[in-house]
Amino acid sequence: MAKDRRAQTRTATDRWQTALTLIAPNKILIRGYPLDEMMGRLSFAEAVYLLLMGELPTPAIGRMFNAILVSSLDHGVTPPSTLAARNVATTGAPMKDSVAAGVLAFGPHHGGDIESCMRFLDTGLAMVRGGKTMADAAEALVDECVKANEAPPGFGHRFHTRDPRASRLFQMALELELEGEHVRMLRALERALTARADDFDRALPVNVDGAIAAISADLGFAYDLGNAMFLISRLPGLIAHAHEERTRQAPMRQIDPKDHDYDGSAERRLPETRK
Amino acid sequence: MAKDRRAQTRTATDRWQTALTLIAPNKILIRGYPLDEMMGRLSFAEAVYLLLMGELPTPAIGRMFNAILVSSLDHGVTPPSTLAARNVATTGAPMKDSVAAGVLAFGPHHGGDIESCMRFLDTGLAMVRGGKTMADAAEALVDECVKANEAPPGFGHRFHTRDPRASRLFQMALELELEGEHVRMLRALERALTARADDFDRALPVNVDGAIAAISADLGFAYDLGNAMFLISRLPGLIAHAHEERTRQAPMRQIDPKDHDYDGSAERRLPETRK
Amino acid sequence: MAKDRRAQTRTATDRWQTALTLIAPNKILIRGYPLDEMMGRLSFAEAVYLLLMGELPTPAIGRMFNAILVSSLDHGVTPPSTLAARNVATTGAPMKDSVAAGVLAFGPHHGGDIESCMRFLDTGLAMVRGGKTMADAAEALVDECVKANEAPPGFGHRFHTRDPRASRLFQMALELELEGEHVRMLRALERALTARADDFDRALPVNVDGAIAAISADLGFAYDLGNAMFLISRLPGLIAHAHEERTRQAPMRQIDPKDHDYDGSAERRLPETRK
Amino acid sequence: MAKDRRAQTRTATDRWQTALTLIAPNKILIRGYPLDEMMGRLSFAEAVYLLLMGELPTPAIGRMFNAILVSSLDHGVTPPSTLAARNVATTGAPMKDSVAAGVLAFGPHHGGDIESCMRFLDTGLAMVRGGKTMADAAEALVDECVKANEAPPGFGHRFHTRDPRASRLFQMALELELEGEHVRMLRALERALTARADDFDRALPVNVDGAIAAISADLGFAYDLGNAMFLISRLPGLIAHAHEERTRQAPMRQIDPKDHDYDGSAERRLPETRK
Repeated sequence: MAKDRRAQTRTATDRWQTALTLIAPNKILIRGYPLDEMMGRLSFAEAVYLLLMGELPTPAIGRMFNAILVSSLDHGVTPPSTLAARNVATTGAPMKDSVAAGVLAFGPHHGGDIESCMRFLDTGLAMVRGGKTMADAAEALVDECVKANEAPPGFGHRFHTRDPRASRLFQMALELELEGEHVRMLRALERALTARADDFDRALPVNVDGAIAAISADLGFAYDLGNAMFLISRLPGLIAHAHEERTRQAPMRQIDPKDHDYDGSAERRLPETRK
Repeated sequence: MAKDRRAQTRTATDRWQTALTLIAPNKILIRGYPLDEMMGRLSFAEAVYLLLMGELPTPAIGRMFNAILVSSLDHGVTPPSTLAARNVATTGAPMKDSVAAGVLAFGPHHGGDIESCMRFLDTGLAMVRGGKTMADAAEALVDECVKANEAPPGFGHRFHTRDPRASRLFQMALELELEGEHVRMLRALERALTARADDFDRALPVNVDGAIAAISADLGFAYDLGNAMFLISRLPGLIAHAHEERTRQAPMRQIDPKDHDYDGSAERRLPETRK
Repeated sequence: MAKDRRAQTRTATDRWQTALTLIAPNKILIRGYPLDEMMGRLSFAEAVYLLLMGELPTPAIGRMFNAILVSSLDHGVTPPSTLAARNVATTGAPMKDSVAAGVLAFGPHHGGDIESCMRFLDTGLAMVRGGKTMADAAEALVDECVKANEAPPGFGHRFHTRDPRASRLFQMALELELEGEHVRMLRALERALTARADDFDRALPVNVDGAIAAISADLGFAYDLGNAMFLISRLPGLIAHAHEERTRQAPMRQIDPKDHDYDGSAERRLPETRK
Repeated sequence: MAKDRRAQTRTATDRWQTALTLIAPNKILIRGYPLDEMMGRLSFAEAVYLLLMGELPTPAIGRMFNAILVSSLDHGVTPPSTLAARNVATTGAPMKDSVAAGVLAFGPHHGGDIESCMRFLDTGLAMVRGGKTMADAAEALVDECVKANEAPPGFGHRFHTRDPRASRLFQMALELELEGEHVRMLRALERALTARADDFDRALPVNVDGAIAAISADLGFAYDLGNAMFLISRLPGLIAHAHEERTRQAPMRQIDPKDHDYDGSAERRLPETRK
């Protein structure tokens, strides 16, 4: 029988389960591990991986995941999310309100590409499991994009022609031997797009969302958690902008993104001691 | 002349400045450092510190900050923020909406104690600079709390009598030689509270917010960023709960926090290889 | 050529237009009408209609729209949106934060049914324009629902077997002669569902979202504005609950929806003088 | 004994009460009145008043409250709340996310003035109850503002020198005989400010927030509900702007408020038939 989409009325014995965190007096277990034991022995990124995935990451995965989280830390003043956060901050609202408003701006076209790209890659891999070569699957996907008059998710950037964050993620995935079928599918798409360059009105390099999508999918992340990684990564960026807005600008300022300049540190390199 | 609190009308030459991130074609600089260079060489926590504070942390501060961020990762099903997030998730709303709702629940009594405690410690330190001993300043502050019929911020917990996260943070601060005047002020408050135990209706151990407040203040964080650390730390917790709600439960569920059980991993220890 | 989904870089002459409100010194025009003139001569609902639709409503439409907005004013403690709002309120967060969290909980299964139902009705009407009778179109739609194991949007309620709000809206639409093809399509679906009652595991009366969807569609509202009406209607409900939580309850309360009772006014009737 | 600010652990018999809405099968009572009975007989504004205040408004209060809600319906493109909403809308996020972000922008300097002004007026009235004349109380309050280098809440506007919405509200309050001590206090402040005009760097006419504050206070609204009225009023404005952004503009647009023009209806008058 067809189910009524609305929930049934509650019965009296509705216990429900959670597998994430056990709270007992003076004890906090995250997926079974004592939180105070994790502190100082796991990096924050490794602890996040544990919480989301249920098991500790290997050292290689821990390094990869740290890099993924660093990759989307901030992208300056102009993203709509940062402007939403700054517009809330200028009214004197507290930090958390600015941040929440910025998070809400991660809509389908902004920060939501990781999930779309993960699904897109899986569509291609389904073709491969159905018998196509990876190259043919990639071509078929590119064909659909041309017909739909849309760039594939994970490719293109309104500002960069070669996304340095994507390149670095792929380099690390290679070095750490974490490349899998999703990364290979993405590479095939790269080649297919290059071959069909004339069918698009601008260059479509792989972008950081595509790199995160491919590598995360190979790490076994669910679609829903793909976008979550972007949230975790970008939150400090929103915080930094909200804080700068409140500390450097007058309240109730009309914020025109066009009119900003950068007055921060000149370019500098990390000390050699940091490897 | 008294100023009108509302902003002046804009003039034509209103350039404004940001010192956080420089975006140029194929280049992203976070406080001057290339983002792709940071990836793989800085942990996410170190990158966050850099963005918020403007300079790289020392290795000791990097370890401390990682631990601070791990400390508030999650606290189970019952916090109001987690329930707000789950109630949004049960309606089928996307991850970011659940997370934003959870963030909004970090009001004055919940996650907002870090900033209150930082200010409170500074009130005590102002007394010290004015001539009081630390012990006398602590007593004076505790006096005011008794009169106001309120526990001091940074102390007490609705569940734990000895907050394991606070103990661990103080242990690390000692080992890493990062203790400063705020930590000493907090310790003085601990002793003063113990001496006045009869004036309060329950034990008031220092809690994780107090530990974070004291250590962050000694690291030079602004008040506004105190609460921000809690946001960064707890965001993955909100994500994990929203994700679990959507993957394990029927939609439009009536969520009673009282009726939950833990069915996750039994307690386990980190492997010795992780130091 | 396929377009890059991301926005082009901005050019220098990017003026953009708004047709809603003109602000000039000492003058505010809403769709051309002076706001101070509207005050006292238009009800709030009529003013909202003007702003959203661009023209004044007829008196009949004004009465209908007032009723639509009243219909979803509140539905007690148990909706997830109300619980999200109360969980934020209990932390001491200000009214607007509670309200924003409640708004975020209007996901696909909760308050989002108006838009789904509007689209659903249009699917049926497209079949009618293609040659089917309304009865056959309704049957075809119900068939699809049975196959998909889902109730159609606009029908069913987790609590009511005859939604008094839907009945009243239809009665008014009839009296005010505002029924159109969408309402007739909905009635046809009602009959088709009754004929197929055995294929569903519970009664599926038309609910208030279905009534609002049908009537609003006949009034010419865009899909996006269908859900907006629910937001406008329910906002005072969220406010009232947040306010009651903060004024009647202790902060940081664990809120179990199961454990509430009603202690408000006994049932009473409107005075005869109100028609 | 001083109380621990955190909540006590829950006991088993924690029933809690709500007085707002009774939900029973096929019955919804708002403060005791059947919702379907209210539909068509009460305007939305009157229904909102009933829900918030617990009793039906008199016809005069109903007219006043409708006007209050109309007064803050929208104020064009430039307010930070509207820009936050548009920045979220441009990312493709759904209506409710844009609206929630806009709501978050109603910080202390933006939409939060109603509550500040209500408290401010009460400060003056407390002086009057203590023996001062209203004129002297007003002067004392203005004195404090000059010393604090701040305009009083409820006065001044970044754009209007004579707020037409405030004038209209006062006119209606007079005609409907709803003026009380708060309105008289506000008038006294107006006169005191005029006398001290040289101490401020710009004209400070009473604004709509001041008018709403005074009239609402005389109607008996709690402080918390003062700001709530602004939320209810402005929500349709946020919706209209989010909708216009999504329907008229390309996604991921960089929104510069400076660059907009109005292309809506020319000024027009309400038909005589509307009184």
